[in-house]
Amino acid sequence: MGRLRPCARYGLLMVPYLLALGLGAALLRALEGPPALQLQDKLRAELAAFQGEYGACLPTGALEELLGTALAAHAHGVSILGNGSEAGTWDLPSALLFTASILTTTGFGHMAPLSAGGKAFCVVYAALGLPASLVLVATLRHCLLPLLSRPVGWVAVCWQLAPARTALLQAAGLGLLVAGTFVLLPALVLWGVQGDCSLLEAVYFCFSSLSTIGLGDLLPGRGHDLNPVLYHLGQIALLGYLLLGLLAMLLAVETFSELPQVRAMVNFFGASGPLTGEDQGGILGQDELALSSLPSSTAAPEQAPAC
Amino acid sequence: MGRLRPCARYGLLMVPYLLALGLGAALLRALEGPPALQLQDKLRAELAAFQGEYGACLPTGALEELLGTALAAHAHGVSILGNGSEAGTWDLPSALLFTASILTTTGFGHMAPLSAGGKAFCVVYAALGLPASLVLVATLRHCLLPLLSRPVGWVAVCWQLAPARTALLQAAGLGLLVAGTFVLLPALVLWGVQGDCSLLEAVYFCFSSLSTIGLGDLLPGRGHDLNPVLYHLGQIALLGYLLLGLLAMLLAVETFSELPQVRAMVNFFGASGPLTGEDQGGILGQDELALSSLPSSTAAPEQAPAC
Repeated sequence: MGRLRPCARYGLLMVPYLLALGLGAALLRALEGPPALQLQDKLRAELAAFQGEYGACLPTGALEELLGTALAAHAHGVSILGNGSEAGTWDLPSALLFTASILTTTGFGHMAPLSAGGKAFCVVYAALGLPASLVLVATLRHCLLPLLSRPVGWVAVCWQLAPARTALLQAAGLGLLVAGTFVLLPALVLWGVQGDCSLLEAVYFCFSSLSTIGLGDLLPGRGHDLNPVLYHLGQIALLGYLLLGLLAMLLAVETFSELPQVRAMVNFFGASGPLTGEDQGGILGQDELALSSLPSSTAAPEQAPAC
Repeated sequence: MGRLRPCARYGLLMVPYLLALGLGAALLRALEGPPALQLQDKLRAELAAFQGEYGACLPTGALEELLGTALAAHAHGVSILGNGSEAGTWDLPSALLFTASILTTTGFGHMAPLSAGGKAFCVVYAALGLPASLVLVATLRHCLLPLLSRPVGWVAVCWQLAPARTALLQAAGLGLLVAGTFVLLPALVLWGVQGDCSLLEAVYFCFSSLSTIGLGDLLPGRGHDLNPVLYHLGQIALLGYLLLGLLAMLLAVETFSELPQVRAMVNFFGASGPLTGEDQGGILGQDELALSSLPSSTAAPEQAPAC
């Protein structure tokens, strides 16, 4: 077999990637370990003080048990605190935000299904909905990219840019537009509207949502005694932001991935020699499928096995 | 302009999609609303009973304040409960799992940065790491798909399948392989290892992680008094699972997206007429870029503006 060690160069990419994973972890550990430990110590000191002061009246472990159940329920979005007039965790705007977070794979996790039926439904819903999301995005991309490239095409003609530079300009332009419109601008709005979060936290939240990481540690409005109408409006705004922003971001990613420089990089790391992998084997390409009206023997692979 | 209403058919896709979003929300609300309300009522009754029994010794609001701070810290992975011998939230395996959850966009959210430096680092790390992840996956796809298609090619020759059927067989085969190896099998292992979760919950967790939704409500081992070594081994196993499983899943998605049936569907919904969008405008294709050695005037777009 001629390609005994195919794509050996991807090791050049894999090793730094894994190193970056490890270094990132080490750095975050250095940055976050101490504050987390401090907070933990502070909390436990508070608990100890509380027990010390009032422990005489509390049976052993009763407080811990209460805290434990409260924390466990919190993971599903059910709060032990709050007054009885709330509609509960699964009001319609919250449910919509939850389904949107599933279909966009953001998965904030501030709410999660409790029942077996709910969990099963989530799996089925995601299994059907995620491919549908992908088809929708592919379709919209099909429509929107030509529209987006038109202004860039005009600029290219006016400035007499080479096609390669035009592609770079398009990618850079789209990237900046998306970053500005879907990360910076919403972050500024959030920062303005929500009094107690810094601009960094707002950018962090917008970026985390748009990249579909969805850590869910900062959700606007949660835990605040907001006017319910405002809170729900905020949830619907977030929902729209997720859907539109993700579409924009995927368009930008697609644009970058089609750049010749990026393709060359992928080809470089993925090739074992001068021939690119795309010329050989791989999934049946458009051309071969176009030939599908011909007898299948014309599409025989290189090494026919003995049947 | 000839294309006044481009890609009007995508509305046929968009409307059902938004309807599905709404219906999913309504259905989840019906499934989850009652259990969540019940849990909430139960918790608040417990709190009320607690206060009723021991409230005499507790100052007003002291317990609520304690609960509030405990819940807020919990969102960052800091637990008020537990003994002092733990290494803290950001031990190395936990930090590695966190960075992996960022790079794979899963974002469990069971831990989150507290400090401004940590948040800023996460944004930068994701902004650099996500494109790197995409390049890595593209490269590996470049290498692995040819290998995967070889057995299918042999089968196609033996059974004299048409190329279109071969592609379908490849996609279906890969899909089943990924579902079996990366969802069902790990779910069975998890179910076997972790005594208190059902098979459904294990499948739910594996699916949620692999699809990068990452709700984070069920994280194996959390909250259990496990042997720390076992717990950390579990975290490392989860880390490997995320990285490998996601790669496998993306390969499967790529395979499906290249199916002629899928492409035809995207073309159908994205076209405004017989001409496909790909023939016109759009991002500069490979051919045009190959012509980049020629003067740029050859690549002038249809409608040259007056400069």
